[in-house]
Amino acid sequence: MSVRDFVVVLVGPLYGGNIGSVCRAMANTGMSKLRLVAPDKSVDWSEAERMACHAKGVLDNLQIFDSFADAVGDCSVVAGSTARHGLYRRHAQTPREHAPALCEAAACGRVALVFGREDKGLLNEEVSMCTHLIRIPSVPEYSSLNLAQAVMVVCYEMYVCGGEYETERERSAPAPAALRVRMLDMWRGLLLRIGFMEIKKADHMMSAVNRIFSRGALTMCDVNIMMGVVRQASWALDHDRHNPPDHSTER
Amino acid sequence: MSVRDFVVVLVGPLYGGNIGSVCRAMANTGMSKLRLVAPDKSVDWSEAERMACHAKGVLDNLQIFDSFADAVGDCSVVAGSTARHGLYRRHAQTPREHAPALCEAAACGRVALVFGREDKGLLNEEVSMCTHLIRIPSVPEYSSLNLAQAVMVVCYEMYVCGGEYETERERSAPAPAALRVRMLDMWRGLLLRIGFMEIKKADHMMSAVNRIFSRGALTMCDVNIMMGVVRQASWALDHDRHNPPDHSTER
Repeated sequence: MSVRDFVVVLVGPLYGGNIGSVCRAMANTGMSKLRLVAPDKSVDWSEAERMACHAKGVLDNLQIFDSFADAVGDCSVVAGSTARHGLYRRHAQTPREHAPALCEAAACGRVALVFGREDKGLLNEEVSMCTHLIRIPSVPEYSSLNLAQAVMVVCYEMYVCGGEYETERERSAPAPAALRVRMLDMWRGLLLRIGFMEIKKADHMMSAVNRIFSRGALTMCDVNIMMGVVRQASWALDHDRHNPPDHSTER
Repeated sequence: MSVRDFVVVLVGPLYGGNIGSVCRAMANTGMSKLRLVAPDKSVDWSEAERMACHAKGVLDNLQIFDSFADAVGDCSVVAGSTARHGLYRRHAQTPREHAPALCEAAACGRVALVFGREDKGLLNEEVSMCTHLIRIPSVPEYSSLNLAQAVMVVCYEMYVCGGEYETERERSAPAPAALRVRMLDMWRGLLLRIGFMEIKKADHMMSAVNRIFSRGALTMCDVNIMMGVVRQASWALDHDRHNPPDHSTER
């Protein structure tokens, strides 16, 4: 299934800036097929180009249709976005709930993600032509998102669901217990030597130090840095602490 | 934990339109605390007001700081958003991965969601002051989101994670098997009567009809409509089919 084949349909958009921002949101999530239904005559296309930024390719290739029916005529799934409530919109679900079904459908047919006018959204007659209704989670006091923001959220959910994106992982492996114990032993030795704690309170204090180091997962790299601190401090105590050698490149 | 207490920090924003759109995205997700660090002198504040739409309250109450350190000074968690890669940004995780920890932190301290300049993002020295790094999933070819879009996605993820939003459920209960069987029996009778299928092929055709009705979960309301169709068609066959009574209000 590929998120790249989704078709974004804007019905009666009024503002060029929004059209451009929609292009950028689509490009950020790998989509490129934009269709407009009867855009307003006052649309500022230079503003659209400015907001599209590096997504000018999406803007240049958009298709314009006279009617909603024509714009989605070849789409097997038509998912309309709505912020309004009412009898015909009660079955709306969140983009995250819809995403698996929509991504699956996009793998074997054309899927339209439809967004209404900035001021009025989708009309009931347009809603009635949708196979799915999307409602983006928002607070009841102000549930209407900006058009391009709504497209961003929906495209983002489809993109994440598509599974193309791989999150980054730490390159350094998590430190094994033995190495952590060695690090804590080195810290105990140093903290005793500099007089930070008395020997009879060492266990108590070291459990606090261990807790600090254990709040997140320490990597090998992290442990090496924290052992390096002890080594350097020990060296400084043994030698002239005002002119330590530069070990920064060795760590 | 409340998503409403998150602080959004924009570092060196250039465009009023983006600042306004950020206000709206925040209002849509229940947030209200906006801080700007040294906004550009050319910021068009009337454009900001226009894009803030009904979120003018957020715009009116924003705080301006001279330095990033001051803007996040009272925040126990500082989560910076970055699209760039590099040595100091390798541990960035997605907003969805970070959301549970950030929402939990927001319940007992101030949490900053930080976003950099439109053109350069966050500088390394600013990244080094963050406790968490957020990378929004996007395609490698065009990974840089518009500033307000980035804020929208991050705020949306926090809002969804906060658990305040309840998705709508069908008000009509799912139809029990017995009712579905009765509906299919009625359809079988009608389809035979109008000659849609022969008796010897009825089982085969009815399994196809059943499959059509079973692709989604049918509610009581759905089944009542489909049984109503049969009743009305039967009536029309028995009587003058050009002047059927108006039963639409009974269904």
